[in-house]
Amino acid sequence: MPAPAEMLSKLVRFSLADGMSSDVAPIQRRLSNMKGMYADEAAYAGMVRDDPLVYEFHDMGLPESEGAIAFGTSIIYAGKVGDEYFMTKGHFHTILATSEVYYCLRGHGYMLMENPEGDWEARELTPGCALYVPERYAHRSINVGSDTPLITFFAFRADAGHNYGAIETRGFRKRIVERYGRPEIIDNPGWKA
Amino acid sequence: MPAPAEMLSKLVRFSLADGMSSDVAPIQRRLSNMKGMYADEAAYAGMVRDDPLVYEFHDMGLPESEGAIAFGTSIIYAGKVGDEYFMTKGHFHTILATSEVYYCLRGHGYMLMENPEGDWEARELTPGCALYVPERYAHRSINVGSDTPLITFFAFRADAGHNYGAIETRGFRKRIVERYGRPEIIDNPGWKA
Repeated sequence: MPAPAEMLSKLVRFSLADGMSSDVAPIQRRLSNMKGMYADEAAYAGMVRDDPLVYEFHDMGLPESEGAIAFGTSIIYAGKVGDEYFMTKGHFHTILATSEVYYCLRGHGYMLMENPEGDWEARELTPGCALYVPERYAHRSINVGSDTPLITFFAFRADAGHNYGAIETRGFRKRIVERYGRPEIIDNPGWKA
Repeated sequence: MPAPAEMLSKLVRFSLADGMSSDVAPIQRRLSNMKGMYADEAAYAGMVRDDPLVYEFHDMGLPESEGAIAFGTSIIYAGKVGDEYFMTKGHFHTILATSEVYYCLRGHGYMLMENPEGDWEARELTPGCALYVPERYAHRSINVGSDTPLITFFAFRADAGHNYGAIETRGFRKRIVERYGRPEIIDNPGWKA
């Protein structure tokens, strides 16, 4: 009895140097895809005309089965909008009680995490750090490096799903900005409880 | 409402150079832990007196929840028992319909996979290869390099569980051995259908 096609193994190459794949095209997010997410709207308006690439990631298109593990790399480029570092949109999982694991391959960043009750955590990422994002926590990757991409390998339950809407509406409780040349975690004045 | 302790994030360092962690002790498997698994029993008996370290891996001790993702690194050392390369014991998941993802950081190896019906696959691992091991497949990592450890980062559903017994009893359908200086996949004469 041969296994059905969706059950076969899958081998995908992701460069350890730049996170890019020779096998799968990335999904790209430019600044224009992130309207309203950065606090400094004037800085955003000035930069969006050139519409820089903020981050890219890979989606394997695995069947959304509770037994499957989705995986890929995420590459966040170095940059700031005003004093706020380049970051991903961030999301909850649609199946809220599912976790995710990130393994940092290159760069310097933070993972900002927050649950629906507003509890939050920020963990620093450097090469060789594996980070377990717990169940029920939205998560956003932030590159605080000055010129190196933040590259991570990620894995999560393939049926977890992505809920971007909650973050688009109320944001994260915290922001990470540059102060005196270093990252600082500040309150987000726009956060809605 | 603070999150319960087991829901908090977890940051664990694994060296990208050698896979070892400064935060978590590895679980070690020596040759004496693998009695009966290599085909050449005379070579095994000769080597087991020195009892070399064959592989080590990390277990985070995460709660075995269906929403959690277990992760760590696995390091298989270079070596052979007769002409058969150093390898892990290999296992099915106790919850058979769960998958696993490996990201190869260093070395040269193969993942040998087999389902309960005896369908099998072998995929080559080199640095930068991510391998999706499908649901229902037992899996064994094999180091075919001559002197470099095979190092992978792995992730799977934390409640998947490990079933070593089935492999200890019947083995894998295939073995990977050195022939004329190169790896070759051969039938396992001891395999029991």
